[in-house]
Amino acid sequence: HVNGERLWQSLMELAQLGATVKGGVCRLALTDLDRQARDLFVRWCEEAGCTVTVDGVGNIFARRPGRNASLPPVMTGSHIDTQPTGGKFDGCFGVLAGVEVLRTLNDLGIQTEAPLEVVVWTNEEGSRFAPCMMGSGVFAEKFTLEETLAKRDAEGISVGEALNAIGYAGPRAVSGHAVGAYFEAHIEQGPILEDQGKTIGVVLGALGQKWFDLTLKGVEAHAGPTPMHLRKDALVGAAAVVAAVNRVALEHQPHACGTVGCLQAYPGSRNVIPGEVRMTLDFRHLEPERLDSMIEAVRGVIEATCAKHGLSFELTPTADFPPLYFDQGCVEAVRGAAAGLGLSHMDIVSGAGHDAIFLAELGPAGMIFVPCEGGISHNEIENAAPADLAAGCAVLLRAMLAASVA
Amino acid sequence: HVNGERLWQSLMELAQLGATVKGGVCRLALTDLDRQARDLFVRWCEEAGCTVTVDGVGNIFARRPGRNASLPPVMTGSHIDTQPTGGKFDGCFGVLAGVEVLRTLNDLGIQTEAPLEVVVWTNEEGSRFAPCMMGSGVFAEKFTLEETLAKRDAEGISVGEALNAIGYAGPRAVSGHAVGAYFEAHIEQGPILEDQGKTIGVVLGALGQKWFDLTLKGVEAHAGPTPMHLRKDALVGAAAVVAAVNRVALEHQPHACGTVGCLQAYPGSRNVIPGEVRMTLDFRHLEPERLDSMIEAVRGVIEATCAKHGLSFELTPTADFPPLYFDQGCVEAVRGAAAGLGLSHMDIVSGAGHDAIFLAELGPAGMIFVPCEGGISHNEIENAAPADLAAGCAVLLRAMLAASVA
Ligand SMILES: NC(=O)NCCC(=O)O
Ligand SMILES: NC(=O)NCCC(=O)O
Repeated sequence: HVNGERLWQSLMELAQLGATVKGGVCRLALTDLDRQARDLFVRWCEEAGCTVTVDGVGNIFARRPGRNASLPPVMTGSHIDTQPTGGKFDGCFGVLAGVEVLRTLNDLGIQTEAPLEVVVWTNEEGSRFAPCMMGSGVFAEKFTLEETLAKRDAEGISVGEALNAIGYAGPRAVSGHAVGAYFEAHIEQGPILEDQGKTIGVVLGALGQKWFDLTLKGVEAHAGPTPMHLRKDALVGAAAVVAAVNRVALEHQPHACGTVGCLQAYPGSRNVIPGEVRMTLDFRHLEPERLDSMIEAVRGVIEATCAKHGLSFELTPTADFPPLYFDQGCVEAVRGAAAGLGLSHMDIVSGAGHDAIFLAELGPAGMIFVPCEGGISHNEIENAAPADLAAGCAVLLRAMLAASVA
Repeated sequence: HVNGERLWQSLMELAQLGATVKGGVCRLALTDLDRQARDLFVRWCEEAGCTVTVDGVGNIFARRPGRNASLPPVMTGSHIDTQPTGGKFDGCFGVLAGVEVLRTLNDLGIQTEAPLEVVVWTNEEGSRFAPCMMGSGVFAEKFTLEETLAKRDAEGISVGEALNAIGYAGPRAVSGHAVGAYFEAHIEQGPILEDQGKTIGVVLGALGQKWFDLTLKGVEAHAGPTPMHLRKDALVGAAAVVAAVNRVALEHQPHACGTVGCLQAYPGSRNVIPGEVRMTLDFRHLEPERLDSMIEAVRGVIEATCAKHGLSFELTPTADFPPLYFDQGCVEAVRGAAAGLGLSHMDIVSGAGHDAIFLAELGPAGMIFVPCEGGISHNEIENAAPADLAAGCAVLLRAMLAASVA
C-alpha cells in the first residue's frame, strides 16, 4: 500500500541534518539544525497539499482536509529532535510515516471523512530541555505554556528564547483542540520484537516515569594531605547512589528501570576531592506504587549516604508521568491492521515515553512499534530495516483510515 | 627577620591574577593569567637585583650572586599555577617566601657565600597538563623535554604550544645544573599542624603517588526500553570503581589515600544509559609495596566489574612518583631554624607532591610547612595566617643562609 522506498529516502534525507561521523544524528531541540529539519517537514507537507500551522510551543500541524470539516482530525506524528548521540529513526520514523500516509492517500486519490493531521511535537527527547514530551505535554494541557517557555537548558537559554531564535513560536493556540484519534508509529527502542521475530508491536501502554536532578555537596580538598576519614567526598556518595539506583531497579522487576544518565564531578581535577556532584535519576515502572517504592528506596540510600559522608543533597523532580494504558479501540485497530496485512505481531509495553502518551489524554490513542537492530536506540548506531519501517507505515495507514470513517 | 607585611602584600597582589568571586584563584598552567603572574615575578626579582633566566620548559630562575660564583646555588622556589578552583597560597607562598628572602637580604646588605636562586617551576598542579611537578621533573631529568612538550591538555593544546603562546619557552638548558641545596616553603594542605597547634612542620618526606586515567566502555542505549539485565552501563561499573578506590585506601592505612577527582559519563543525557565513563585515579602511600597493593586491589575490582557488566576498560598511568625521604642535613637545618627562632614545630609527612621531591634527586633538599585554615587546600576558601607565613619564611631564610656558607 505505502511506498517504502520513498519513506526510506525521506528518512535518509532528514538524517543529513545533524549527521554525525558515526552514522547517527545530533539535532537537539530548537537548535538551528532542528529549524532546518522543521523547514524540510513543512516543505514536504505543503508539497503534499497540506495547510501548515505552528502553535506557541513550536508544534507543527500539517492538515489534510476531510469530507467533513466539522469532525475532529485523526492525527499522527512524533518528533524530529534527537539525542546528542542519537539515531536516524527515533521520532523521525513516526513523522515521516505520517508524511508517507499523506503521499499515499494523494497517490490513490483517497479523501478521508475526517481531516488528517501530521504533527511534529517540540522537544520530545528532553535532553536539551527537561522534561521530555514537552510539546505534546503543552498541547494536552499537562504543562502550561508559560512554565514551559521559561524552562532553560544547561547554558541558561530558555525554551521561549530558543523558539524565537529559530522562528518557530507560532500563532496557533496551544490547547483546546479536539482529537478524533491519534496513532504514532515508532521504533521499539528495545530488543523484544527482534528477539521474538515479530514485525509489529501492538503497544498496550507505557511505563510510568519519574525523573530527578540530584546534587550532592561535600567539601573539596587536596587529594594528598587530607586524611581519608576526614573527607567529605561528594563522588564517593554519588557512587553509592548510582549503585543503589541499579540495585533497586533489579529488585523491582518486572517492568522496572533505573538509570543515572548524567553525572559530573566538580571541580574535576585529578588531585582534588570532588566537593560537588550533579547527576540525573530516571525511574520507570508499570505500576505506580512500585514506581514510588523504587524512589523511596533510593531516597533512603541518599539520606544514609549523606549522613555517612557528611554531605548535603538536593533532590528536584524534573518529570513525572504515570503509567498509561492505551484506548482499547485503538489497540484493536492496530492489531487488526497488522493481522489484515498478514504481518507477524505481538502485544508489547513501551519502556519509553512518547507523545502518544499525552495525546491519550485528549482522545483515543494507540501506537505501532517496529523492531530496531539489536534493540539499540539513543545511540548513533541505531538502525531499522526498510521493510519493517514500511510495514509499520502500512499499519499506520490502515489504522488511520479506519478511524477517519468510524 | 623577614618583613611579613611585605610578604603578605605580595601574596595578595599575585592573587589578583585569576581571582575568583569566591576568594580563590583560577590560574591554570601556561594560560595568559599564568603569563601575567610570571611577568610580575620577573619584575619583582629584577627589582631585587637578580638576573632572570627561563629554560625550555618555562621554569624561571632568579639568581642573586654570592661571593663565590663557582659554588652551586642554594635554591628555593615553588609554583604559581593553581587548581581550577584553587587558593591564594598553594605554591605562591613558596615562591614569594623566596622573593621575601631576597628582599630581606638586600635590606640587611647580606652577601651569601654561594649564589641564591628563587625558582618558579612550571605546571606543578598537573590539573591542565598531567603529570604534576612537570617543570621540576624536567629539571631533574625525570621527564625528557621532548615528551613533556608533547603532553596535551583536554582541548588538545600541547605544553610546547602553550609555552610559545605565552612567550615562556626560554633559551636556558633544562638540565645539567648543580644544586647546592634546595628548600621549599609550603602550606601544609592538610589539617595536622592546625590540629596539633604547631607553627612549623619539619617535613621528613612525602607519600609516593601513582595516577591513572581510566576509561570504561559499555553500550549506550535507551534508559526506558532496555531491560536492566541486558544493559552494559559504564556508569554502574564506574560507581563500583569509585567505591573500591575509597574502600581500598581505608584498608591500607596509615599514610594511604585514594581519590577519584574527575569523572564524566557520556553521552550525558538523562534518558541514555552511559556508554562510556572517563575518570582519574590518584593513589598515595608512604610504602612502595603498599602503594602497589592498593593499585592491584583496585585493578582486581575493575576487572571483576567489567566482566560482570560486559564492559571493556583502558587503564593508563599518568604519573608515578616513589615515596621520598628528604636529606637528613636539610631536615636538621629546618628543625634547627625553627628551634632557633623559638617556633613551635613538629615532624610531618607530606601527602602532596612538591617540586622539592624532584629537586631531591639533584642535591640535598628539605621542606617547611605552615598551617592552613581547616587543613583545606585545592579549594577557593584556602587560607593561612600572615604570622604563620612570616614564620615559615623566616625559617626558610635561616635554612638557606646556613646552607650557603656550609
Ligand atoms: N521515545 C523516546 O525516546 N522518548 C524520550 C522519553 C523517554 O526517555 O522515554
Ligand atoms: N602541592 C600540591 O598541590 N601538589 C600537586 C601535586 C599533588 O597532587 O600532590
